[in-house]
Amino acid sequence: MADPRRDTRWWGWGDPSETTVLSAGAENLLAEAGIEVAAVRPVPSMETIRLPEANPVPDAVAGAAGSRNVSVLDEDRLRHSGGQSYADLTERRSGVPGLAPDAVVTIDSASRLLPLLESCAKNGVAVIPFGGGTSVVGGVVPERNGFDSVISLDMAGLRSAELDPTSMTARLGAGLRGPEAEALLARAGFTLGHFPQSFEYATIGGFAATRSAGQASSGYGRFDSLVSSIRLVAPAGELSTLETPHSAIGPSLRELVVGSEGAFGVIPDVDVRIRPLPEAKRYEAWLAEDFEAGNQIVRGLAQRDRLPTIARVSDPEETAVSLGMSGPSGIAGDAFRRYLKLRGKSSGSLMIIGLEGTSARVRDDRRELARSLRAGGAIPLGQSAGRSWSKARFHGPYLREALLDRGLVVDTLETAQQWSRHRGLYESVRAAIRSELDSLGVAGVVMCHLSHAYPDGASLYFTVIASPGSDGGLACWKRIKGAASRAIQAGGGTLSHHHATGRDHQPYLEGEIGALGIDTLRAVKERLDPTGIMNPGCLIPLSA
Amino acid sequence: MADPRRDTRWWGWGDPSETTVLSAGAENLLAEAGIEVAAVRPVPSMETIRLPEANPVPDAVAGAAGSRNVSVLDEDRLRHSGGQSYADLTERRSGVPGLAPDAVVTIDSASRLLPLLESCAKNGVAVIPFGGGTSVVGGVVPERNGFDSVISLDMAGLRSAELDPTSMTARLGAGLRGPEAEALLARAGFTLGHFPQSFEYATIGGFAATRSAGQASSGYGRFDSLVSSIRLVAPAGELSTLETPHSAIGPSLRELVVGSEGAFGVIPDVDVRIRPLPEAKRYEAWLAEDFEAGNQIVRGLAQRDRLPTIARVSDPEETAVSLGMSGPSGIAGDAFRRYLKLRGKSSGSLMIIGLEGTSARVRDDRRELARSLRAGGAIPLGQSAGRSWSKARFHGPYLREALLDRGLVVDTLETAQQWSRHRGLYESVRAAIRSELDSLGVAGVVMCHLSHAYPDGASLYFTVIASPGSDGGLACWKRIKGAASRAIQAGGGTLSHHHATGRDHQPYLEGEIGALGIDTLRAVKERLDPTGIMNPGCLIPLSA
Repeated sequence: MADPRRDTRWWGWGDPSETTVLSAGAENLLAEAGIEVAAVRPVPSMETIRLPEANPVPDAVAGAAGSRNVSVLDEDRLRHSGGQSYADLTERRSGVPGLAPDAVVTIDSASRLLPLLESCAKNGVAVIPFGGGTSVVGGVVPERNGFDSVISLDMAGLRSAELDPTSMTARLGAGLRGPEAEALLARAGFTLGHFPQSFEYATIGGFAATRSAGQASSGYGRFDSLVSSIRLVAPAGELSTLETPHSAIGPSLRELVVGSEGAFGVIPDVDVRIRPLPEAKRYEAWLAEDFEAGNQIVRGLAQRDRLPTIARVSDPEETAVSLGMSGPSGIAGDAFRRYLKLRGKSSGSLMIIGLEGTSARVRDDRRELARSLRAGGAIPLGQSAGRSWSKARFHGPYLREALLDRGLVVDTLETAQQWSRHRGLYESVRAAIRSELDSLGVAGVVMCHLSHAYPDGASLYFTVIASPGSDGGLACWKRIKGAASRAIQAGGGTLSHHHATGRDHQPYLEGEIGALGIDTLRAVKERLDPTGIMNPGCLIPLSA
Repeated sequence: MADPRRDTRWWGWGDPSETTVLSAGAENLLAEAGIEVAAVRPVPSMETIRLPEANPVPDAVAGAAGSRNVSVLDEDRLRHSGGQSYADLTERRSGVPGLAPDAVVTIDSASRLLPLLESCAKNGVAVIPFGGGTSVVGGVVPERNGFDSVISLDMAGLRSAELDPTSMTARLGAGLRGPEAEALLARAGFTLGHFPQSFEYATIGGFAATRSAGQASSGYGRFDSLVSSIRLVAPAGELSTLETPHSAIGPSLRELVVGSEGAFGVIPDVDVRIRPLPEAKRYEAWLAEDFEAGNQIVRGLAQRDRLPTIARVSDPEETAVSLGMSGPSGIAGDAFRRYLKLRGKSSGSLMIIGLEGTSARVRDDRRELARSLRAGGAIPLGQSAGRSWSKARFHGPYLREALLDRGLVVDTLETAQQWSRHRGLYESVRAAIRSELDSLGVAGVVMCHLSHAYPDGASLYFTVIASPGSDGGLACWKRIKGAASRAIQAGGGTLSHHHATGRDHQPYLEGEIGALGIDTLRAVKERLDPTGIMNPGCLIPLSA
């Protein structure tokens, strides 16, 4: 029987057995920023949760799904009631989530998808595709939007893998989580190299549907560039692109399915480009004089086609928090303090530089990289600091749980733009968030890093930790997010570099792609999903 | 006044002052292949050409275009009566071309485009966007397709360039030809690095509209990967994508406009990624034992992320023709013969390996490349042979003119597929063409090269030279092309790696993207071009 997975915290991120207590260092930092930290608020027990009443799922739909694949159990409905945005987590933690799917369907074979979607279309059932449930933009919120019922379509059952070692490609089932996919590939000596922070729970289908980018995307490529071909099952039929490295036959249907966020149909599997497992990995930390200096080093590397596998630069605020929160096992806190003392400065920008590949290449590239870093005024903090980062690279969401436990607002947002606007956008978005915090009258920490660089530009990833304020955390976050989004659009940045549109960015979509752009996407949706059942309200605005 | 350009042969390719006489070596090779070469057939003089009568262009359309930008002169109509496919050239050389636009509109400002297209839509005027007129797939054939009149929209007037050196991007007008764009960029120390064989006459807009790939695309990237953002003016309005290196906001509208082949609207300009002009260039020739050995060397380089800027492998037939046709200034004919004698072999596969970049990098990469080439059994033929190739790299179309002058059928076709199918597809397409030549009872030369490689696969580019046969050259070529297209689709290849769909590949489109794929593109077209005036019959099949 195909079961939805239940191995994570239902109320938040990850393995329930993982500790998420705030370190003393973190508590100090928050106190220094004027953020009051409440006592731990216990999460309600699952038994006390009150879900909205479920509408019945039509028999025909259950029949098409296979009745053993349909669950109406409260636990499954609760676990599919949202993703991992601050709003989603707040809902679940409240004990009275406003939305839940009427049923969870866990698909056990791709061949069931078309009849299922056809039946849903015929019976007025909205379908929310659900991979790892790690959306931070409202991409899996089960909004009914006028339909009689709404199901969450869990892809956990589609976990096949088929390799073509000669072409270095693999067809991976949409429901494979990051570590599952990597384990299957590693057996044959390959890696996908896609390591977003959500890696441990996010799925192949979700990576494709949201244009994910990973921490090592400078080296391995963003997920969209790893997709060699793709399939989409829509209520109107199946679409599949040719397995060819490139084609000049018209517009790219592959690029229309990648990023479609469940609004056109469901992605059952993806053909991806894979690479040999790296012989060597070398991660190290450097300290740039300031954020701009670090960014300029990365720009130089990108524009000379010399980017390492991983290149990250934290602004001084994030640097201070990274080093301060890390506690006894932290990132080179001592070296950092020695450096600052030596230079008579009060801050610096932490850089994480990672190289993966053959031993010879890592060695050669490291030599050249070190030259560029020193030439840009950075000093090495060593490999142990790099290893610390690497060890903690998927730990961010756990830290967030600890902050949420203490009643704080914590969320992230990100953008990207060309280098000529990079510094200006960093400053204007930061100022917009700061000013909104001021007008809310709440204390907050605003941190930023660059984690994805290109010859023509780079991403900026902001993290905000704030007191909830008098109107509550959600109202506070919505105002911060709104101010940041407006500043991003005024500065010519994209609403998202790698988190997708979801429901949260949709109100700003016209500013990004224009009214005709929305109309064009809607035309595609109407052809592939004529009754509009697919993830209604996500990506494409509902018709008036 | 905005004039369409008239500096090329009206009946074929390139500079009319360039000599295109067949060398004695070429005549010998053709004779050896059993191909009878007729005496030179003079091209009719322009004055004797009889064009189909022109329908009047509505006054409102002429007004929107600016009447000084509208030409109904026979020379302009003739020059816009088709592209550079064998069928197009045969038509023009016949003296009685079957089609010609009713008028040629040369746009002098992007701001005129929207009112012009709106007026065309209102007045039932079909619009054929025309860049360099170098389409080899029927992309600029002025088919009326039920509209009252048809204009060719020449983009020659849009030749602006605006650089952002910090971001290493440039906004280039659609009408800039390859050398014009490179000259503008070179002044600031940059290059686009896009050098298809059509480079000298093809335009920026055309590169984008057809997903062009150039000879140096292994190093600089295909044109689609050079596009950072793009604009489209459609009858329904304007679409433009954000100037950002990447965005995760939904499906890629950029990738919907790139490759749109004039069927959705017109591309007025393109933002491209540019690079510093290379300090050093090193081209050399190598000889692999056979085609497969050469291909495997290239596969290894691609899969280790070590592709040079240029990597080409000719099959033995193309190798023999390249070396034989080259005459006194040819590619290492002597070294080739010495090598063959030494190895006691009758053939080999010519490889062209090019490196561009900083001097240090060219030197380092060359050392590693030479190791890989030798390990794969290839031997060096030297830099002079590489330079010969480089000198002649845009000369192919002139050679073709010389063959057409002698009454021969000559055209090319290309595909791409994953490495695991590469060899099989080469053999099956070759066999299909050979077998069609046999059943036509005509002698022919079938040559092939790999010129674009990726970690997961590569392109195959076939050239066919044949006697015209009893039913005439066009009938002969259509049968060959049909047989090759069916073999390509049976073998899982794409109909085109870098020449686009046009009108010629359209009958096979469903085999490539499926009925729902066509429907999806049609939905986009209907939204952007509701009356269907844009390049009707190109890319998207006309509705029944």
